[in-house]
Amino acid sequence: MVNRSKVTIHDIASRAGVGVGTVSRVLNDHPNVSPKAKAAVRAAIAELGYRPSSAAKTLRTNRTHVLGFITDTIASTPYAGQITRGAQATAWQYGKILLLVNSEGDVTLENAAVETMLDRQVEGIIYATMYHRAVTPPASIKAVPSVLLDCFDVEHALPSVVPDDRRGGYRATEILIERGHRRIGYLNQEDPIVARTLRMEGCRAALADHGIAFDDALVAYGNSDPDGGYAAMRDLLGRGVSLTAVFCFNDRMAMGAYDAIREYGLKVPRDIAVIGYDNQELIAASLRPSLSTMELPHYAMGVWAVRYLLEEQPPSTNGPIQAKLECPFVERQSL
Amino acid sequence: MVNRSKVTIHDIASRAGVGVGTVSRVLNDHPNVSPKAKAAVRAAIAELGYRPSSAAKTLRTNRTHVLGFITDTIASTPYAGQITRGAQATAWQYGKILLLVNSEGDVTLENAAVETMLDRQVEGIIYATMYHRAVTPPASIKAVPSVLLDCFDVEHALPSVVPDDRRGGYRATEILIERGHRRIGYLNQEDPIVARTLRMEGCRAALADHGIAFDDALVAYGNSDPDGGYAAMRDLLGRGVSLTAVFCFNDRMAMGAYDAIREYGLKVPRDIAVIGYDNQELIAASLRPSLSTMELPHYAMGVWAVRYLLEEQPPSTNGPIQAKLECPFVERQSL
Repeated sequence: MVNRSKVTIHDIASRAGVGVGTVSRVLNDHPNVSPKAKAAVRAAIAELGYRPSSAAKTLRTNRTHVLGFITDTIASTPYAGQITRGAQATAWQYGKILLLVNSEGDVTLENAAVETMLDRQVEGIIYATMYHRAVTPPASIKAVPSVLLDCFDVEHALPSVVPDDRRGGYRATEILIERGHRRIGYLNQEDPIVARTLRMEGCRAALADHGIAFDDALVAYGNSDPDGGYAAMRDLLGRGVSLTAVFCFNDRMAMGAYDAIREYGLKVPRDIAVIGYDNQELIAASLRPSLSTMELPHYAMGVWAVRYLLEEQPPSTNGPIQAKLECPFVERQSL
Repeated sequence: MVNRSKVTIHDIASRAGVGVGTVSRVLNDHPNVSPKAKAAVRAAIAELGYRPSSAAKTLRTNRTHVLGFITDTIASTPYAGQITRGAQATAWQYGKILLLVNSEGDVTLENAAVETMLDRQVEGIIYATMYHRAVTPPASIKAVPSVLLDCFDVEHALPSVVPDDRRGGYRATEILIERGHRRIGYLNQEDPIVARTLRMEGCRAALADHGIAFDDALVAYGNSDPDGGYAAMRDLLGRGVSLTAVFCFNDRMAMGAYDAIREYGLKVPRDIAVIGYDNQELIAASLRPSLSTMELPHYAMGVWAVRYLLEEQPPSTNGPIQAKLECPFVERQSL
């Protein structure tokens, strides 16, 4: 294979039988070139497979039409792919290509990825994580307009967009209360991640606003997966806790909760209403009965981040914007 | 005596009495080479025992350490992310960055992505799809070493790596037979995609090799999702078909089949053994009982494709390699 980058404008000039200056004028769409010379140069370019270096092209247009997208595991895990989809679709609407690097959280790779993107003069960088959390992104991303997606830096030094998990926890609880539930179980994940803290704050606020006391006996913990949800639900049922509904930290825990509820001879939603969180593509609509849940706004965050980079922003007096997007309620058959 | 491993295209050019550009055009099957020059270059290549792939490496004096990875929807859907993970991990072992574009199958975007990658002088391009199928990739990917991943072009003009779906279908059926099953149901997906065809070929071969007649009454069709599996399983059970095991086209269909089996008051695996396909992260291990399945070699295909681009290849006499990777059996509790 020939590396076409080795073809120079000297090769083009020689092949076309013209001077280097003529080649350069053709490449730059300069008007002062004879049609014959222009045709000869273009033929030589095609024959030799010449590609002007990206740097030279950028110097001419000042725009690369490329955005960088750095993620930990979004491209390699089944959890948040809609972020990519929303960002990609929006970038393409603006005529921009999204170049993505999936670092698996490897800091050295992440730094190398940013360097690679900056070398290639991306117009902006989106730094995205698979779940809502605090991050310390490579400092070098500040060399171009950049935005954090589904994450934030603790100093709020960079603009960010995250799900409004507090409001989502509030709404999920309120929806159960509106349907007459007073004894609501919580299947919580063990790790005190941001989403757990915010959703529980929302739950407690909703209960308080409706005059219902929070009862610690209604909370059980487990891994944030079906086995964890199964164990936590069995824990609640095994303790004989009286409840008519359960709010699961995520749809995966709800999947396990369904199995536990079934093993106790109970039915969803007749005996226990279940609400999940995430609207995880492969699970929520596929469970029987299908699962009502609060959707993580993955697609919407992808759209937001690209628009933020490409559209003029109003001046901010309070530091970089920290956007929180709503987690919409998706109603199915489990309530 | 020339050391074969050190032969460069300069040696070829010198031996053939032509310029280096002519050698590269011959190597690239460029049309604009005189028959005489072409014959001289080919004679020199044969005499010197020259290997084009090492030439590609030698020519790449100005390496970018970047590989391009173009996919339809791998980065945005929950189905095949391990491809990205395998490719990424392997590229990084070689000190290469994988720049990924997720095109959502948009041909214009795909072409623009290839142009962007070539402008940025990627050392090679991987063109990957979310499921095993025939594709027509942008012709321009041939400008650099390139390989198809989880797909193939019908002319086999490009190297490719795909799952060995025929062998997987054979093994799945054989495993059921080895455990004493003779009446095996097939929950098949409706669309006659490559994987369905190959897996069914494998099934039939395994049955034949064990002297079991194929019975059309044991096959039911549905969408390749839990609802489709549920409907197809209810179809089989509703028809009163006698069976002791069922082979599902994928884990998602198996998920629905579980629900149908349960609704008929039957138990997995006591009454009906179930085997899936894919080893879909979010489903197979999470079902209760956990699902035995044939794993799609997503990670291994990612590894293979990157190694193919970055390691010296033995000369091929039969055109570009068309690799088929094994789909390993993952045993859990549904058999």
